[in-house]
Amino acid sequence: MTAKYTIPHEVASYECDVNGTMKLSTMIAIVIKVSEEQSETLNRGNDFTHQFGVTWVITHYEIFISRLPKMNEKVQVTTQAMQYNKYFCYRNFWITTEEGEELVRIESIFSLMNYTTRKISSVTEEIIAPFESEKITKIKRPTKVEALEDPRSVPFRVRFYDIDSNHHVNNSVYFNWLVEGLGYEFLTTYEPTHMNVRFDKEVEYGNQVESQYEIVDQDNGKKTRHAIKIADKIYCEAQIEWQER
Amino acid sequence: MTAKYTIPHEVASYECDVNGTMKLSTMIAIVIKVSEEQSETLNRGNDFTHQFGVTWVITHYEIFISRLPKMNEKVQVTTQAMQYNKYFCYRNFWITTEEGEELVRIESIFSLMNYTTRKISSVTEEIIAPFESEKITKIKRPTKVEALEDPRSVPFRVRFYDIDSNHHVNNSVYFNWLVEGLGYEFLTTYEPTHMNVRFDKEVEYGNQVESQYEIVDQDNGKKTRHAIKIADKIYCEAQIEWQER
Repeated sequence: MTAKYTIPHEVASYECDVNGTMKLSTMIAIVIKVSEEQSETLNRGNDFTHQFGVTWVITHYEIFISRLPKMNEKVQVTTQAMQYNKYFCYRNFWITTEEGEELVRIESIFSLMNYTTRKISSVTEEIIAPFESEKITKIKRPTKVEALEDPRSVPFRVRFYDIDSNHHVNNSVYFNWLVEGLGYEFLTTYEPTHMNVRFDKEVEYGNQVESQYEIVDQDNGKKTRHAIKIADKIYCEAQIEWQER
Repeated sequence: MTAKYTIPHEVASYECDVNGTMKLSTMIAIVIKVSEEQSETLNRGNDFTHQFGVTWVITHYEIFISRLPKMNEKVQVTTQAMQYNKYFCYRNFWITTEEGEELVRIESIFSLMNYTTRKISSVTEEIIAPFESEKITKIKRPTKVEALEDPRSVPFRVRFYDIDSNHHVNNSVYFNWLVEGLGYEFLTTYEPTHMNVRFDKEVEYGNQVESQYEIVDQDNGKKTRHAIKIADKIYCEAQIEWQER
């Protein structure tokens, strides 16, 4: 018996792109907001966590998209801390219609990072217990992301508004960088069905990142591979499957 | 007797910058959402307006900031269509605390733009009547924005996620471009108290804009002047007053 937490959300027009469906960056921002709210209600919000000198970071998302939420649509956003081991917490998110139809499922991996050393810190009972998730010993390996073979690239400067009150580049910002290079025609022709996103290192204010991408034909759509780099070091890797809208 | 419309809003962490106060871009996106919701409740939403071949555009904001909304703060966002004449509608927004204290007041000017010609179209009774705003004959001239003398500049590419379902660059995006050049130190030392923002022309997807700015010392803070240009043509001008946080 684990604790689910749900909030209703009405998709605003400014949360959507030119297709009238939710931007991936906004979708991530909103699911994270729901997990923050759950933490607050369990008295395990940022203030609690920070007293141990640690903060939550997300190292992986696997996203299964049946259909993106639409402008003005009323959806339910649910989260649940599923399992945890010594270093990783496995948390799911679901976006469903009011009738309960699943539109999006997100499987994520969270870790605690030491503020000072910026290294991963072990998960403590004090922080995790109220979420009622299952303790496991196994370390689940997320699906590997394919390396790029012959990428193109778009540069991005980290902007002031890209960093949040934790002095991180907000997780949702990477999704802007990932898809931008694909361009208008691609992004209005195809919609994502599956995404695998792995975060390696922290990007900081003032950094200049390169968002590399390549498009691969598949039987029933496209596959894109992505890497966000600074000076040839990988900070984030992703792989996305797309089908025609 | 005119129609006010209010929604409650809790400020999410992803809506805030590193100062823990609301980003200007998000603040604008949210007030516009409230006016869109009001229009929907009065059956004067986009679908209604679009059947006449026109769409709303915003040509001016004057923003008075007592204090920016804070992370996790519960605020009320109110809008009211105040007055209109042949070509312009004057609409106010207020962000207040739950106790009714005014944090932000925004005076805006809206016009109807013809979809095909991209020119301003006259305001019709059919569209405006349900808002119960006062018909006036006077055309109010907004405060003039000072020209830049010796600006610095930052370039921005219009991104796919900068355009909304109306194929416009979303109004809120300009606020990212306006403040970014001022930099981390300025933006963490000063907070805006008064903004005057004028929109001249539509920026389109794929455009490369230059965001020019200069900082001027004042007795009790700073004044910044801004111009967003493409190839020396002004698309947006602004002037912002700042005080120490």
